[in-house]
Amino acid sequence: MTQELFTINNLWMMVATILVFIMHLGFASLEAGLTRAKNTVNILFKNTLIPAIGLLSYAFVGFNLMYPGGDFAGGFMGFAGFGLALPEGWDSSNYNAGYTFYTDFIFQAMFAATAATIVSGAVAERMKLGPFIFFSILYVGLCYPIVGMWKWGGGFLQTMATPFYDFAGSTIVHSVGGWAALAGAFLLGPRLGKYTPTGMKAIPGHNIPMATIGVFLLWFGWFGFNGGSVLTADPGTVSLVFVTTAIAGAAGAFGALIASYMKFKTYDITMVLNGILAGLVGITAGADQMGVGESAIIGFIGGTLVVFAVVFFDRIKIDDPVGAISVHLIGGIWGTLAVGLFGNLAGFQQIISQLIGIGIVGAFCFGSSWLIFFALKKTVGIRVDEREELEGLDINEHSMQAYPDFASKD
Amino acid sequence: MTQELFTINNLWMMVATILVFIMHLGFASLEAGLTRAKNTVNILFKNTLIPAIGLLSYAFVGFNLMYPGGDFAGGFMGFAGFGLALPEGWDSSNYNAGYTFYTDFIFQAMFAATAATIVSGAVAERMKLGPFIFFSILYVGLCYPIVGMWKWGGGFLQTMATPFYDFAGSTIVHSVGGWAALAGAFLLGPRLGKYTPTGMKAIPGHNIPMATIGVFLLWFGWFGFNGGSVLTADPGTVSLVFVTTAIAGAAGAFGALIASYMKFKTYDITMVLNGILAGLVGITAGADQMGVGESAIIGFIGGTLVVFAVVFFDRIKIDDPVGAISVHLIGGIWGTLAVGLFGNLAGFQQIISQLIGIGIVGAFCFGSSWLIFFALKKTVGIRVDEREELEGLDINEHSMQAYPDFASKD
Amino acid sequence: MTQELFTINNLWMMVATILVFIMHLGFASLEAGLTRAKNTVNILFKNTLIPAIGLLSYAFVGFNLMYPGGDFAGGFMGFAGFGLALPEGWDSSNYNAGYTFYTDFIFQAMFAATAATIVSGAVAERMKLGPFIFFSILYVGLCYPIVGMWKWGGGFLQTMATPFYDFAGSTIVHSVGGWAALAGAFLLGPRLGKYTPTGMKAIPGHNIPMATIGVFLLWFGWFGFNGGSVLTADPGTVSLVFVTTAIAGAAGAFGALIASYMKFKTYDITMVLNGILAGLVGITAGADQMGVGESAIIGFIGGTLVVFAVVFFDRIKIDDPVGAISVHLIGGIWGTLAVGLFGNLAGFQQIISQLIGIGIVGAFCFGSSWLIFFALKKTVGIRVDEREELEGLDINEHSMQAYPDFASKD
Repeated sequence: MTQELFTINNLWMMVATILVFIMHLGFASLEAGLTRAKNTVNILFKNTLIPAIGLLSYAFVGFNLMYPGGDFAGGFMGFAGFGLALPEGWDSSNYNAGYTFYTDFIFQAMFAATAATIVSGAVAERMKLGPFIFFSILYVGLCYPIVGMWKWGGGFLQTMATPFYDFAGSTIVHSVGGWAALAGAFLLGPRLGKYTPTGMKAIPGHNIPMATIGVFLLWFGWFGFNGGSVLTADPGTVSLVFVTTAIAGAAGAFGALIASYMKFKTYDITMVLNGILAGLVGITAGADQMGVGESAIIGFIGGTLVVFAVVFFDRIKIDDPVGAISVHLIGGIWGTLAVGLFGNLAGFQQIISQLIGIGIVGAFCFGSSWLIFFALKKTVGIRVDEREELEGLDINEHSMQAYPDFASKD
Repeated sequence: MTQELFTINNLWMMVATILVFIMHLGFASLEAGLTRAKNTVNILFKNTLIPAIGLLSYAFVGFNLMYPGGDFAGGFMGFAGFGLALPEGWDSSNYNAGYTFYTDFIFQAMFAATAATIVSGAVAERMKLGPFIFFSILYVGLCYPIVGMWKWGGGFLQTMATPFYDFAGSTIVHSVGGWAALAGAFLLGPRLGKYTPTGMKAIPGHNIPMATIGVFLLWFGWFGFNGGSVLTADPGTVSLVFVTTAIAGAAGAFGALIASYMKFKTYDITMVLNGILAGLVGITAGADQMGVGESAIIGFIGGTLVVFAVVFFDRIKIDDPVGAISVHLIGGIWGTLAVGLFGNLAGFQQIISQLIGIGIVGAFCFGSSWLIFFALKKTVGIRVDEREELEGLDINEHSMQAYPDFASKD
Repeated sequence: MTQELFTINNLWMMVATILVFIMHLGFASLEAGLTRAKNTVNILFKNTLIPAIGLLSYAFVGFNLMYPGGDFAGGFMGFAGFGLALPEGWDSSNYNAGYTFYTDFIFQAMFAATAATIVSGAVAERMKLGPFIFFSILYVGLCYPIVGMWKWGGGFLQTMATPFYDFAGSTIVHSVGGWAALAGAFLLGPRLGKYTPTGMKAIPGHNIPMATIGVFLLWFGWFGFNGGSVLTADPGTVSLVFVTTAIAGAAGAFGALIASYMKFKTYDITMVLNGILAGLVGITAGADQMGVGESAIIGFIGGTLVVFAVVFFDRIKIDDPVGAISVHLIGGIWGTLAVGLFGNLAGFQQIISQLIGIGIVGAFCFGSSWLIFFALKKTVGIRVDEREELEGLDINEHSMQAYPDFASKD
């Protein structure tokens, strides 16, 4: 490989890295926008800290859990030691055709924090800050990279006869977050006043412009999330991935628009926003394997599913203030399955492999996150007390307000 | 051409694609910020859906209308069929020296939605949602690519003896949106209470930080809009375009600052913001043909013009809540003319060609958008009823509020 | 050098340019968010105008002051004439291995405005607009490039026996802004009601989401600020710089979190946000000279320092509404010193050189900014009158409000 091509590939991977970085602002904006003003500082605090946790824990332990190297290949877990050690030829195509060692680390590190960011939305407005931070460190530092190793680190999901396929992480990233979001939301219970004897009460987000900014930034960053997962700047593959990613997001908007209009007879922007995200989550597993029409179908169904999923979780009284479980878990499962149903890899064997991956990752992630949340619940407690929840977490956990100059409605 | 150079060129075009994508968030933020809180969800809903409409319709029909291929070259309209069909060698410099087929499509697709986004601002706070969506699909899916073909698809504006010149779309993109904005604002009529017997009433935008975020994101994205229009990563041309784009925006700020201070004796940030945009629209037609000083002059005049245009349209009672017509139509005409007045192509013949392009595109766009709006007006109606306008479109069309936790002033 | 490598290098420098550009939106959002709603338009107005001032003044005079060319090398000041003159071979590696002449100019121009942007925050909520604009033009157009020449233009700080080292501008950019911020805040005096006989009164920022958006955008842009300062796309160096930049920001968050929790017993998001920035400012001087662990230490100490600095400046009654002096001046000094303490260049001689650079730049910048502010104070005045300050600058200087639709708290 020429030095020129290596430099181009590495440049794209670095640009993709920053695009994934800004997704954390996307999550912060979306989650803050879809919750109440009295809990805004708390959401922003968590989502500001999470990338910091992700970067530091991934440097200290995560990267070497996720990519333990050849000796552990095919196994369930391996570890190449604490901290980062520069290998020989780290800054040339001897290390990798697409990037240097440091690019490899930083691109992957930006992904790592995503898992906790997804959880943050689902447990919003009622979870104690300290236990959430503790959970995030464990989940991002240990659980995420262990699962990641199974597929991307050369583990058993990769070495199966028909390898589990997950291009950029419908399962390996989004479902990992989604399962923990489900465990957390279940163990916490719903927000006060959400489900009453007389029915479900909508608790609208306080700042729709923020939520919209969030979704646009996430879509923007997704071009790096999926496009960077090509791991080189190969013109054909990356540009195909751009098209499938864009089309799936667009189709997700329409899927959610139509489904929600038929169901609620109104134009619900939060559904459209979540529909875009579900379309994007849906295409993530097979973004390099689909054509334009298939991407549109996958995105459209993803957008439709999110509407039904939001209704479903409300019916079973799992309170997810921002719809994170519907988007990332349901969307992630759908996208992973879709690789077996559409595109180059479609086939019965592939469907089985996809189901195996979904199942095993789900069992491990739901189980491990449940264990951590449950242990925290039984010891320090995970839920703020009633007064604090009613007054808002901002005043109680942060001694401040997000908008001190404005009068509130009540 | 080496594979390396092709890969670099394609990489830049992909990066430029995402920069143009984020301009849609810029438009959404700007338009939401410059209108009232009670119509914010409506604006955001439209501006979120528009890129989705643009991507899907451009894949289905627009791209093949805009680039119908050789047989139609020189004509007024052609069509290469529905959907996207991969040509031979689509991912090599055999297709194009600067990009793959998919990059070509996705870069152009991001431009397509811009036309409708511009209209969205001008018809804000009083237009029905359904008809607007219908208009957008027709205008983005058919009118925009037909006009685009005349110049960029090798049509008659390109094959004239002295070709009409429009580097990145002062006319082909911005005026296309601006003419439809004019037709829509005229047929809708002004917002209730805007022009009273005792004079014009200012209706201030509800969120200046949002508007500021919007303009910065638009400026940011414009480096991809103009820089990507080089169609390769050629260092000399792209870096020149960066400089002319930056300088014209900066000079536009000062043009509007000075003109508005002289006229209103106050420092009006909305004028400065629109001045930046007018400077950017102004340089767009000739961004690769100007020097630093010429860019400053073009931007400065663009910024000045926007102030007078805003006053003018208010005087003739065309109510444009965000100044979209002043920025994109007046700025677009100015920028297109400027190619004949300044820079490498300046000359009498060029001025004539520019006037021909401005006139024909204007006649077609104003005419076709008028027809669509007029047909909608006479059938389903385009304007919300009085009660709905007074209460706000958010409650009535979307059953929600953008900021439910905050008390409103009155 | 091959044309391919030159094109790649130039592409990265152009992308880095836009990343630095968007930092101006970061500053605008951060400063607006951390001040009161009644002064928001004023802050945004200043921060929108500053990049325009930077671009125009740098084209007119700054670039040629900062890079006067060989004849002046080693001296204290030189000037290559007004405006930009294209040198021979400006768009090839004959001009520079990493970029064209225009890329060189535009990348540097984006840095130039940063100095005034930093000041904007420190003098917020009480400084007159006109004098601030006047100050900005002088400081950005003359003082910043003169100092920059000392190091990056080949001046005496560069030609010392042990050259002063400042990779991307902890001193040359951030302290330059920080010293002027100190001079301005001192000469203006504190905001009314900030320091009372009974103690210091906290004046909380009015929009924490805006402040959070600001910090994320600054972090995002910093990858271009530091990464672009490599001046090529060299894979090894740029990816190392990405890692050190990311890790220092993350460690800064934790440094400030721990220090502020120990000091105030609450989770203060504004401290965490400023801690991230202090970590980033801290790594800027040596981002290419540190390892991962050293970056974490530098960032962590930077984040800790900012908490103590904020308390310190309040104790000596220097009122800095957004913490700009603590972040950029204290963080900049710390980062510059850290080059002598950690990493490849650590050593006694280097510490001495760093101290020399810090001292001389500090004396010149504090002195010159003091002189300008003092002259303005004694002539036109720099502080708005008491009524205007109480009512807010938005109504008085701009005849408008940032959020006219919302009821304010009191």
